[in-house]
Amino acid sequence: MLIRSFNPPVRTLMGPGPSDVPPRVLEALSRPTIGHLDPAFITMMDEVKELLQYAFQTGNALTMPVSAPGSAGMETCFANLVEPGDKVVVCQNGVFGGRMKENVERCGGVAVTVEDSWGEAINSAKLEETLKVHKDAKIVAMVHAETSTGAQSDIAKLVKLAHAHGCLTIVDAVTSLGGTPVKVDEWEIDAIYSGSQKCLSCTPGLSPVSFNERALEKVRSRKSKVQSWFLDLNLVMGYWGEGAKRAYHHTAPINALYSLHEALLILREEGLDGAWDRHFKNHLALRAGLEAMGLLFVVNKADRLPQLNAVTIPEGVDDAKVRSRLLKEYNLEIGAGLGALAGKVWRIGLMGHSSRAENILLCIGALESVLGDMGANIKRGVALPAMQKAMGKR
Amino acid sequence: MLIRSFNPPVRTLMGPGPSDVPPRVLEALSRPTIGHLDPAFITMMDEVKELLQYAFQTGNALTMPVSAPGSAGMETCFANLVEPGDKVVVCQNGVFGGRMKENVERCGGVAVTVEDSWGEAINSAKLEETLKVHKDAKIVAMVHAETSTGAQSDIAKLVKLAHAHGCLTIVDAVTSLGGTPVKVDEWEIDAIYSGSQKCLSCTPGLSPVSFNERALEKVRSRKSKVQSWFLDLNLVMGYWGEGAKRAYHHTAPINALYSLHEALLILREEGLDGAWDRHFKNHLALRAGLEAMGLLFVVNKADRLPQLNAVTIPEGVDDAKVRSRLLKEYNLEIGAGLGALAGKVWRIGLMGHSSRAENILLCIGALESVLGDMGANIKRGVALPAMQKAMGKR
Repeated sequence: MLIRSFNPPVRTLMGPGPSDVPPRVLEALSRPTIGHLDPAFITMMDEVKELLQYAFQTGNALTMPVSAPGSAGMETCFANLVEPGDKVVVCQNGVFGGRMKENVERCGGVAVTVEDSWGEAINSAKLEETLKVHKDAKIVAMVHAETSTGAQSDIAKLVKLAHAHGCLTIVDAVTSLGGTPVKVDEWEIDAIYSGSQKCLSCTPGLSPVSFNERALEKVRSRKSKVQSWFLDLNLVMGYWGEGAKRAYHHTAPINALYSLHEALLILREEGLDGAWDRHFKNHLALRAGLEAMGLLFVVNKADRLPQLNAVTIPEGVDDAKVRSRLLKEYNLEIGAGLGALAGKVWRIGLMGHSSRAENILLCIGALESVLGDMGANIKRGVALPAMQKAMGKR
Repeated sequence: MLIRSFNPPVRTLMGPGPSDVPPRVLEALSRPTIGHLDPAFITMMDEVKELLQYAFQTGNALTMPVSAPGSAGMETCFANLVEPGDKVVVCQNGVFGGRMKENVERCGGVAVTVEDSWGEAINSAKLEETLKVHKDAKIVAMVHAETSTGAQSDIAKLVKLAHAHGCLTIVDAVTSLGGTPVKVDEWEIDAIYSGSQKCLSCTPGLSPVSFNERALEKVRSRKSKVQSWFLDLNLVMGYWGEGAKRAYHHTAPINALYSLHEALLILREEGLDGAWDRHFKNHLALRAGLEAMGLLFVVNKADRLPQLNAVTIPEGVDDAKVRSRLLKEYNLEIGAGLGALAGKVWRIGLMGHSSRAENILLCIGALESVLGDMGANIKRGVALPAMQKAMGKR
């Protein structure tokens, strides 16, 4: 096979992640590689920790990026906190709750699931019922923002409930962090993980995590070793911990961390309030356009994530063909449905740097063109005015 | 804390990795991010597989980069191949053999170690003895190039021995791949892992692995699930497998894979023979300089790795001070000793793009200056002519 340097097409990324990566972050990625024990690098690691503490709204000392994608961040939480035989209640309202269950079982834990329909938020009454029955549960795991459906759950309330029943909490904030409020200390979340490639608009491959003292106490007092050497926080903290002296554990992904540093700096410059506000306003504009066209949202209004908009594919429309045409004709990526929603919905992301007015215009315009051309039953010529009205422009 | 964009110092990396990353690879890293299911990306993934097959000298279909550093590549091999109760013989002649043992035990396996002195190659007679005693052993694990000592072992011979006793083999090629011959098919290695940041001169964060059919058969016929969801090859192969249709498993580290693609392309352009030859010749030149100065190698001549040169720190010399001065005065990084060799040796890497004549000159010149200035007992003024002679120049 003749292989040349890979020059990727320039896409607009409006799927469920990765999101568009701003030029500043891409440029930071290509700065000269230095050693993972270089004093200059260790200073940068401390800054990354501080910036992540801001993003997570926490003072947790153990706040750092795992050197692998979000699924490894998830596994870091479960592998460190679940001991063989531990009962874990998993709230499941989409694909990622299912993955949490898999994690519990592979760690030797016993998973008890609280199931809600896909597209709905986690029902706190059901969780309470379950906790009353399973009094020996030790952990409750929940997804804040279900990337597979676009539903957002009330984490503050669910965590309070878990604590009232003596359970620790693990929260998936992969799609929420930076796009919608995540308040680790205020909500008293014990362990949380996220991803670099969603609302932080960094390149994919890193998973920020944060553990409070209560969670760390469980890790420290384990009777068995953490089953993963790579993800064992007792070891990882020798490298990511306090002080100038760091013990080698694994070689950190140096350049990826440059880019996370830059992405987090951009977030701090805008401010969390600013970022949350931008995500919400842009969601309103996109929603106005999509609804004017006649597309229906999967999730009810109250539980919708601003950064991930799941809409039902109109009857008779060829899902794959639409997405393929959007990509070929407009270099626009939107997301397919996942799991039970495959072929039934599109997931339109407005995450991080992708959450911009120009992207919304492109998306609505391209969708209207392609769907119209394919003879789909949509209203034409009304989306743009509806969006403009929602944006406060006329 | 006031935090600004991080602009790293420009170092010359002659430690045990990361090695110097060539500008082409850094530039590739900063190309626009696209989706992990984008058809253009999938084509690139196929090219990465083909380029890795060349680097590993294998036709194995399961040849791909794990989305995390070398330690996760190691864990991929053990977590997939070791089932609870399996007896695994681990050859241990340095830090990384010890880490393999940890992996076996955390997977529920029973580790039997064959220990050799640090700095020595693995002794095949000792391995044979052990295999005769432990007839129920299922796997033999061995490190090709011990990064902690600079010793190279005869993998072809050891694998043959393991097979003769009915065992599968796991080989650590983190520091060897691209720098010294690694012939997966010819040597009949069953499972192997490496790292991106050593002789491939890519940025750190990826771990190429390759499994042959025999190893895959063991993965497929497991009685228990792989304990790591993230590293479960049964799932990962749905994404990295054959054909245009790929199932989402985790979000691939897109930009990191661009850089691996470029680094592997550079390797193929030079050719493996050319790269091995360059690593060896540059080692001879560095060695001539170091030995002329009076520094002694840890490993005997026959077992020395060309790309990792461990030398004993002269009596009375302050290890940390020397490395700190090299970094501050010359922007040169050399490696400290690890584990039992901490404070006793320096590890000078000539890996990938770091294996260049100009780096050798810098290293010898800087070492001679700093050690001389600190009053160490070394010969001065003789290293440069010795190196030039070794390089065939006068």
